[in-house]
Amino acid sequence: MIQIGLIGVGHWGPNILRSFDLTGRAHVRWICDLEQESLAKIAARHPSSRTTTDVQDLLGDPEVDAIVVSTPVFTHFELAGRALAAGKHVLVEKPITSNSREARELIQRARATGRVLMVGHVFEYNATVLALKKLIDSGELGRIQYLNFVRTNLGPVRTDVNALWDLASHDVSIMSTFLGRRPQDVSARGQSWLNKAIEDTVFATFSFPGGVLAHVNVSWLNPQKVRQITIVGDKKMAVWDDLEMQHPIRIYDRHVEIPEVADTYLEFKTAVVDGGVYLPNVKLNQPLQAECEHFLECVEKGAKPRSDGESGLGVVLALEAATRSMRDGSRVTPIEEA
Amino acid sequence: MIQIGLIGVGHWGPNILRSFDLTGRAHVRWICDLEQESLAKIAARHPSSRTTTDVQDLLGDPEVDAIVVSTPVFTHFELAGRALAAGKHVLVEKPITSNSREARELIQRARATGRVLMVGHVFEYNATVLALKKLIDSGELGRIQYLNFVRTNLGPVRTDVNALWDLASHDVSIMSTFLGRRPQDVSARGQSWLNKAIEDTVFATFSFPGGVLAHVNVSWLNPQKVRQITIVGDKKMAVWDDLEMQHPIRIYDRHVEIPEVADTYLEFKTAVVDGGVYLPNVKLNQPLQAECEHFLECVEKGAKPRSDGESGLGVVLALEAATRSMRDGSRVTPIEEA
Amino acid sequence: MIQIGLIGVGHWGPNILRSFDLTGRAHVRWICDLEQESLAKIAARHPSSRTTTDVQDLLGDPEVDAIVVSTPVFTHFELAGRALAAGKHVLVEKPITSNSREARELIQRARATGRVLMVGHVFEYNATVLALKKLIDSGELGRIQYLNFVRTNLGPVRTDVNALWDLASHDVSIMSTFLGRRPQDVSARGQSWLNKAIEDTVFATFSFPGGVLAHVNVSWLNPQKVRQITIVGDKKMAVWDDLEMQHPIRIYDRHVEIPEVADTYLEFKTAVVDGGVYLPNVKLNQPLQAECEHFLECVEKGAKPRSDGESGLGVVLALEAATRSMRDGSRVTPIEEA
Amino acid sequence: MIQIGLIGVGHWGPNILRSFDLTGRAHVRWICDLEQESLAKIAARHPSSRTTTDVQDLLGDPEVDAIVVSTPVFTHFELAGRALAAGKHVLVEKPITSNSREARELIQRARATGRVLMVGHVFEYNATVLALKKLIDSGELGRIQYLNFVRTNLGPVRTDVNALWDLASHDVSIMSTFLGRRPQDVSARGQSWLNKAIEDTVFATFSFPGGVLAHVNVSWLNPQKVRQITIVGDKKMAVWDDLEMQHPIRIYDRHVEIPEVADTYLEFKTAVVDGGVYLPNVKLNQPLQAECEHFLECVEKGAKPRSDGESGLGVVLALEAATRSMRDGSRVTPIEEA
Repeated sequence: MIQIGLIGVGHWGPNILRSFDLTGRAHVRWICDLEQESLAKIAARHPSSRTTTDVQDLLGDPEVDAIVVSTPVFTHFELAGRALAAGKHVLVEKPITSNSREARELIQRARATGRVLMVGHVFEYNATVLALKKLIDSGELGRIQYLNFVRTNLGPVRTDVNALWDLASHDVSIMSTFLGRRPQDVSARGQSWLNKAIEDTVFATFSFPGGVLAHVNVSWLNPQKVRQITIVGDKKMAVWDDLEMQHPIRIYDRHVEIPEVADTYLEFKTAVVDGGVYLPNVKLNQPLQAECEHFLECVEKGAKPRSDGESGLGVVLALEAATRSMRDGSRVTPIEEA
Repeated sequence: MIQIGLIGVGHWGPNILRSFDLTGRAHVRWICDLEQESLAKIAARHPSSRTTTDVQDLLGDPEVDAIVVSTPVFTHFELAGRALAAGKHVLVEKPITSNSREARELIQRARATGRVLMVGHVFEYNATVLALKKLIDSGELGRIQYLNFVRTNLGPVRTDVNALWDLASHDVSIMSTFLGRRPQDVSARGQSWLNKAIEDTVFATFSFPGGVLAHVNVSWLNPQKVRQITIVGDKKMAVWDDLEMQHPIRIYDRHVEIPEVADTYLEFKTAVVDGGVYLPNVKLNQPLQAECEHFLECVEKGAKPRSDGESGLGVVLALEAATRSMRDGSRVTPIEEA
Repeated sequence: MIQIGLIGVGHWGPNILRSFDLTGRAHVRWICDLEQESLAKIAARHPSSRTTTDVQDLLGDPEVDAIVVSTPVFTHFELAGRALAAGKHVLVEKPITSNSREARELIQRARATGRVLMVGHVFEYNATVLALKKLIDSGELGRIQYLNFVRTNLGPVRTDVNALWDLASHDVSIMSTFLGRRPQDVSARGQSWLNKAIEDTVFATFSFPGGVLAHVNVSWLNPQKVRQITIVGDKKMAVWDDLEMQHPIRIYDRHVEIPEVADTYLEFKTAVVDGGVYLPNVKLNQPLQAECEHFLECVEKGAKPRSDGESGLGVVLALEAATRSMRDGSRVTPIEEA
Repeated sequence: MIQIGLIGVGHWGPNILRSFDLTGRAHVRWICDLEQESLAKIAARHPSSRTTTDVQDLLGDPEVDAIVVSTPVFTHFELAGRALAAGKHVLVEKPITSNSREARELIQRARATGRVLMVGHVFEYNATVLALKKLIDSGELGRIQYLNFVRTNLGPVRTDVNALWDLASHDVSIMSTFLGRRPQDVSARGQSWLNKAIEDTVFATFSFPGGVLAHVNVSWLNPQKVRQITIVGDKKMAVWDDLEMQHPIRIYDRHVEIPEVADTYLEFKTAVVDGGVYLPNVKLNQPLQAECEHFLECVEKGAKPRSDGESGLGVVLALEAATRSMRDGSRVTPIEEA
């Protein structure tokens, strides 16, 4: 059993706790949180864990193999950094840090200590995302032309990060997984209604080499809960509706046939080729549990995680560029290389 | 009976013809089109109209009161201009012209000749749009925070204008109607897959004085047909789904209550106030018929149309700014005043 | 041009009028209705037809080839009968008559005079129904196990017939088309809330030779408008949602595999074979126009219509049996042969 | 802590186990199952429980306060009977027994021993059912006219009971809760495709005093998963879609106004009064946990459970009558009083 020290059980932490339990291969030995109330509540339901408000109890315990950091983003760097320094493997919630400088330093430290550094980009462990990636890679959709991501809801409203860093971080991670590369630039525009200087709604358009655009619409100030990703290829198109339980993926056997000679736009109209829609039977998984399993495997084998520090840095660099674009009249802003 | 000369019956024209018939107050005396085939087809079903391929037959007929121009956009200026010069009232399809210079000149001519110049911004005559405007104006939604427009489908693909000028022109017209003013600037990004230099997908974010954003996502390269408008207010929110026949409008009695003191983001979460959703019984109308009725009224009374030349110019100026932004690294671009 | 006399333009009649116009092969020479107001309204929009309140004007006009009867059901027998007696071809709205005795007599008269007698079972001309029949006949669904029909809405409430005769007549016509035979017996139960002795909600279960059940749930006292037909085969299953504009048919590649030895029901659970769902691209048609075209063809060629008198009689016999079952404690009641 | 002995952990049992854990007021001291594999799997995740294949271990343990029976239906009588005889309180899964004679005997024994006998009619603890009952009782819907229940899916297929006893038992329990009385008679028809003599699809129509019908359509041989209940009142109507996560209840402010004098059915049509639809914000609960809490309360206070033996007997009597109707030509069959 790998011994885990978990820092932060306010919001997402309890899910991590249960997911490690479900793996059957790890024991959460310590639970640490500054809020006594959260701590007490979780302790009652998890008697085999020790609780503390002092991170040092976890870092100083030689039995602890790995630290999981599930705290507000601005604390990630310090906590993950101290854990690596204490010789622990680290799984840190996404985004890895508040900025790329910190992310680079964490990567450096992990390399120096030979410890695993993994970021909780949970969608990279989602069976549906992986099925869609396989679909793209198989060529069935043809050449990818653009991606569209919508992630809206009314709340939960955060105050430690804006909607871009909270929600669009998922989409940047997914688009990079889909296309096997990182976006090269971005134009973004956002607005802050609920809290000054914390964007609650952001529209961002990323581009990839070859002209593929990936548009992201994220908001926690929208009446409709939507979790939808559209993938447009020149042969077929796919839509993933993550709130649809029975058939989350629809594959549209539709494309526009471009006639060699087209005098009027009416000829184009008849050139839409429609072979119907197919809703495959998708085997869903528990993405967070799969993420935890992957982390444990990497710790056991000393392997490089799929969502490693570099991958987390890539997301942060994209978000930094989007932030700069928002502050600079939405102009297309290059994304630094990782 | 007002005597109408209709130019262009390829695509939208036949709908205009039927709508004028349904008013019972106008007679389409002439039908003009360059395509003999379209002309023959329409003539068979409309024996009381004369047909011609020569616009001059319409303009020179003293019985003709008004000319309706439903042709590719780049011909609007010439045809509408000649019609005004011939002393006819003019209803021209949207967008009014290909550029603001031409629009300004048409406005000038209409003023000089004292003729009615109206643009076919059909959504301004749609009963649901008007119901939503009334809802906004009543204050029931509170202060408007942002608007979101999605108008996607696979085709119909046009070659005379891009998706911005074809589809987003509707959204600019609607957002201006909703807020009673014109957008002040815009950032846009688009891509052209089907035809070089004709954007088939465009993302544009307009802003209004006071910080209201209006985001537009238009595409004719998307597998899903969506016609959806979201209006977010600080008291309530509304969504219009134009493909939903039974209850196209949903009013969400939901908002985020902002606590005076909020230590953690968890407190925010509990502050989402949810009073349910209301789907009013909306009386739908035939927007195009309503538009035609309005035109006839203006002709009869010499009145100024709701969607007059200035209004059409306002839309063109917004689209011109969006086009400049697309060509200039998506930077936020001011929209010229009309 | 076949000359038509149309009796009844209150509700459905105007649609028939327009449909014959669209065929381009018939002229509605006479429009007859007892309501002066309906008559005046329709005359204004259809100047080429003569109007009258006296049926004799139609029957006595030697130019009239065919009579279309679109009046309350209890008048069908008399009007269709007089038309046949006058040597006219007849298209009568469904159900053909109020009872099987009258239907048999009309069939007799049509045979005696050599005239076409057709019943307006419009769904038998619906392209989607025909596509589903083809799917069934192709064997792709396997052996058909049961059918389920739901046809509910709030209104329109009728007073000349109950929901069984108004709505379920469609379903009996469709199920007979699907299976190529008529139901052999039926159990039914209904209730009358709005008008004494006129059932506004009826549940009826028909059986076919071989054990196939066809369940029908019709109501005009239900808040949800539903038009849905489910076809369960032992290989695949199909659902038709007639209110779904884009993809009305869903074909489920799902069935239950029955293991030879099954100790517990849990084994069954894993034996559900799910190959996904396919939404074919269905070409919709205008069913009423297709019905009118078919009538004209039969008149021209003296051919036997698909929905002829016998077919209409079959539906009436099934409805009569269902009515007897409703009046007789819902017991399974045999359906008389036609 | 109340000490529980749980019999049966194949299918539903693990949910019961977890639900008792979540109450924090009970300890599942024993888990009993005949399948070693199920037992081992559950034991690994629940180390504080003892496991056994011998029911006597539970019944003979004086520490055990209550027995929960979650086994195939035909074993309910023996197991619950022995548990009561051993002086234990009993919570037995629904339906209480295979027939009313056994149910009556269990009630008798519980009375004789003064123990709690409760049946797991879980929907009677579902917050949405209770909200709907409150809505009905408030009079907001007006006079109830009919109920419609649809509960279909492809599987899970059972072999110990048919779809009527498996699925419709829920609906009988819910309709009795809604109307505060039991149905008086029933007509039913079913079919068995997967297993001889085990109906996989059943249509049943119950009636209540005053003429209210309640129709039930249950099937585990249907491609679409539907869990929908419609409640039609003469003022308003409500629909509960149990698969709809965000707004499971829709209240239709619609009814048919019956004019005093109505000459034609057209007048009726205009008399549909439509005030829109309201989707209240429903607070969902964990029904099974609420059921377990209620059982513990009854055990602690010696109180009579809401879903007591008599209530369970009422459901069995209705199912017995439906079974007799299915075997006897679907005729309307009276339901015996409890």
